[in-house]
Amino acid sequence: MLNSIGREIPDFIPGYGPVKPFAGAFSFPPDCQRQAPKVKMTVPGEIKLVTSLEEVFKKIAITDGMTLSFHHHFRNGDGVVNQVLAVAAKLGIRNLKIALSSVFPVHEPLIDHIKSGVITALDTNYLSGPVAQAISQGILDTPVVLRTHGGRARAIECGQLKIDVAFIAAPAADDYGNINGIQGPTACGSLGYAFADAEYADHVVAVTDYLVEYPLSPVSISQTRVDYVVKVATVGDPKGIVSGTTRVTKDPVGLKIAATAANVIQASGLLKQGFSFQTGAGGASLATAHFVRQMMDKAGITGSFALGGITGFMVEMLEKGLFKNIIDVQGFDSEAIRSIATNPNHIEVSANVYASPFNAGCVVNKLDAVILGATEIDTDFHVNVVTGSDGVIMGGSGGHSDAAAGAKLTIVVANLLRSRLPVIMDAVLTATTPGETIDVLVTERGIAVNPKRSDLAAILAAAGLPVVNIHELKQIAEKIAGKPQPIKLSEKIIAVVEYRDGTIIDVVRQRMAQE
Amino acid sequence: MLNSIGREIPDFIPGYGPVKPFAGAFSFPPDCQRQAPKVKMTVPGEIKLVTSLEEVFKKIAITDGMTLSFHHHFRNGDGVVNQVLAVAAKLGIRNLKIALSSVFPVHEPLIDHIKSGVITALDTNYLSGPVAQAISQGILDTPVVLRTHGGRARAIECGQLKIDVAFIAAPAADDYGNINGIQGPTACGSLGYAFADAEYADHVVAVTDYLVEYPLSPVSISQTRVDYVVKVATVGDPKGIVSGTTRVTKDPVGLKIAATAANVIQASGLLKQGFSFQTGAGGASLATAHFVRQMMDKAGITGSFALGGITGFMVEMLEKGLFKNIIDVQGFDSEAIRSIATNPNHIEVSANVYASPFNAGCVVNKLDAVILGATEIDTDFHVNVVTGSDGVIMGGSGGHSDAAAGAKLTIVVANLLRSRLPVIMDAVLTATTPGETIDVLVTERGIAVNPKRSDLAAILAAAGLPVVNIHELKQIAEKIAGKPQPIKLSEKIIAVVEYRDGTIIDVVRQRMAQE
Repeated sequence: MLNSIGREIPDFIPGYGPVKPFAGAFSFPPDCQRQAPKVKMTVPGEIKLVTSLEEVFKKIAITDGMTLSFHHHFRNGDGVVNQVLAVAAKLGIRNLKIALSSVFPVHEPLIDHIKSGVITALDTNYLSGPVAQAISQGILDTPVVLRTHGGRARAIECGQLKIDVAFIAAPAADDYGNINGIQGPTACGSLGYAFADAEYADHVVAVTDYLVEYPLSPVSISQTRVDYVVKVATVGDPKGIVSGTTRVTKDPVGLKIAATAANVIQASGLLKQGFSFQTGAGGASLATAHFVRQMMDKAGITGSFALGGITGFMVEMLEKGLFKNIIDVQGFDSEAIRSIATNPNHIEVSANVYASPFNAGCVVNKLDAVILGATEIDTDFHVNVVTGSDGVIMGGSGGHSDAAAGAKLTIVVANLLRSRLPVIMDAVLTATTPGETIDVLVTERGIAVNPKRSDLAAILAAAGLPVVNIHELKQIAEKIAGKPQPIKLSEKIIAVVEYRDGTIIDVVRQRMAQE
Repeated sequence: MLNSIGREIPDFIPGYGPVKPFAGAFSFPPDCQRQAPKVKMTVPGEIKLVTSLEEVFKKIAITDGMTLSFHHHFRNGDGVVNQVLAVAAKLGIRNLKIALSSVFPVHEPLIDHIKSGVITALDTNYLSGPVAQAISQGILDTPVVLRTHGGRARAIECGQLKIDVAFIAAPAADDYGNINGIQGPTACGSLGYAFADAEYADHVVAVTDYLVEYPLSPVSISQTRVDYVVKVATVGDPKGIVSGTTRVTKDPVGLKIAATAANVIQASGLLKQGFSFQTGAGGASLATAHFVRQMMDKAGITGSFALGGITGFMVEMLEKGLFKNIIDVQGFDSEAIRSIATNPNHIEVSANVYASPFNAGCVVNKLDAVILGATEIDTDFHVNVVTGSDGVIMGGSGGHSDAAAGAKLTIVVANLLRSRLPVIMDAVLTATTPGETIDVLVTERGIAVNPKRSDLAAILAAAGLPVVNIHELKQIAEKIAGKPQPIKLSEKIIAVVEYRDGTIIDVVRQRMAQE
């Protein structure tokens, strides 16, 4: 069958199940109750502290076929996933599903666990490094489920991603299971992605290297949801948290795109008192923030909140009074961690509060503008951030689709060429974020506005900005780099791309050996 | 049938349902899943702010027979319950169940709503003033359900108290439904009792008189659970929050009891580094805290946490470094409110975290010592805090049974005579807190230790404290005041006293006209 954006998807995918096809960004209202774990009882005097991960496996009785979940706040510095899975392997457990909110190069040992049958399923929002490459080579028999950050929280809260045991890497914990991310030698800041796991898993284990006297304060995840506390030598390496660059780009093309993106925001009329903004790490995004900041400074604008993965750049804007608040689901550097630990206006939120489409209203719904990237974008404005042009998985939505759906103004910034190939296609290889949620594409050769936003196109043109048709931009790129040859794909589905509402927006098929 | 403490209870109570008899403080493990409300979807741009309570009634479509819930953090200064119920009455709605965590004299208008049929059921943890008196006269056809603070949270989380609409009096809110209790003209401090309502009600309404720009920070109850925000002229009178006296008693008998209670704590060996303590407001409790504080000061002890309804006295101990933290489910005075708003070591917790028996571990489980009062106590150490000796309802458990069950050392302080009647009975009129959870009764004429704590009796006697048999204390009191005549009760059950685990520990029968 074809979903509403014309992607061909089976109605049943082995290893995933029946498919609800994507039908539009807000066209699939929920028809379910919240996940309802079994209610527990705890008697005074019961001890939660156990001496080793192995003991936790035995106390819970972790068995073949269970789903173990993990958060990724340590990013490439994570030290918990590998420790836990080594224990699983040692104990001869097989057939586990791993629900890890993002996968980084540090998680390379997953490959061996997949080969040996310890792991047979993977559920994540972002896949990079050796594991992504191995998955792309077809190492798993069942497709990876790729979700958005809000979609993962939604799937957990709605019981579609049912977690048997959540292992929560805890920078600080007390012996009764209170957890925060802001204290201890491995502080990571916000624990946003772990909240849904703690709330809805059948069993919850805090894994910490920094055990403090009861009661820990402040508390991010409460003792009432944590069954066991395990102290290990280390939960991770804080240096691995830093994401990409945290400096504004010096590349003149990148700066030009960023300046244009900032001009689009200004021309849109959104840049006024109470402005809210999301941008990621990375040179071009930060450069846009840099120009937006200059505009805010000049006009004396105090923004409402900055959102998303938080960097020192946003922290500085908070501290200079350019934003009233930071709303933080994930910290990207040490400045973000320092700020959330000390500034009451820097608010920790769960992935649910950040971006789940299925509750009484998430924060992305209140966003004015967001700057996003793209691996590919097509003339319908559908964006691919899952696969490279070679068909290999190199990312995932993360919060991409969530912020795009929520913000009043969603801007994709991209160089016309990426790795010497045009970034604009007739059809992206893997649709991740639907075009209906993208308002503007900003390139170094002009701005393409989504036809459904003809109001905005008129405003931008009136402001003297270089608005061009996206087909023209595509032609310019193809004149320089030629039209890329489509890669050959097999029938085997290696990943299912779930939209934030649980419908399937696309699948990733394994590429065939290319000629 | 008789429950495990010998109280005679029908196995089915009309208006309540089938009875699970009390079987011991930790003898009734849960066999249920968490309450699972229907999942919602909210699209960007949806507006939550509505102009009046009447509009909220229409938008939700509040209809006959629904359960509306409220919290009692404004205590006798509450301004929301009466406003909401006046709207219900005006709209001709009937047959409502009101789940109000505690009822105060200010809630007198409930009587007229009961008489007119707007309200036909009441669910609460504490009943005082005119409503308590009217209930005692049999004004309601169905029995009031009396719960503990932890038990109410448990009943909501387990789906036994199903809430259609939670009205949350919000000292501060933004237009997207984020709420806290620490800002605005009517700040009440902790919003602990409202958390379960917000999490599990089908519809949630924030009622505020202080609307701030989005995003409110800090956030106690999140936008993701709040459907509507209504601004009203006032949500209450902060002066009504203050509970009883907040000064140490000057009554010499009260001081003697308090000093003895403090000596019991010291002799027990619990008064050391990391000591944790709960005591309520009121002269005798505060006097005990006063003596405990002197001991801590003298011995250089830093306590772990003070718990419960919080007063300025505890705040001062926090600020002087005598406790590392305050854990606060409810503020009792303006100092408590100031402290929770400004001191990161003063932690807000939900009633669930405070005291629910059915989760991975509540805070009362970590209590060393608690000082509690009693209207009556019997020779099996069962305590009555629900009815006066005249059979009229004048209180309720609140956190009484919860703290008693959790603490390592539970001390009841009481004058031997209360309103000229002996406080020790053969059997209390209404069993609220089971004797198995009471360790010591301290009176001005000696200390009675529960026989199940013979270890403690020996330690206290060895410390030179006046340990006597509870039967002796009873005889002393009866020698002074005579043995009270039992009051005559009818068969009509006006209240069901639910223990924290949902079993029935006792019922309150309406008294007959006395001769």
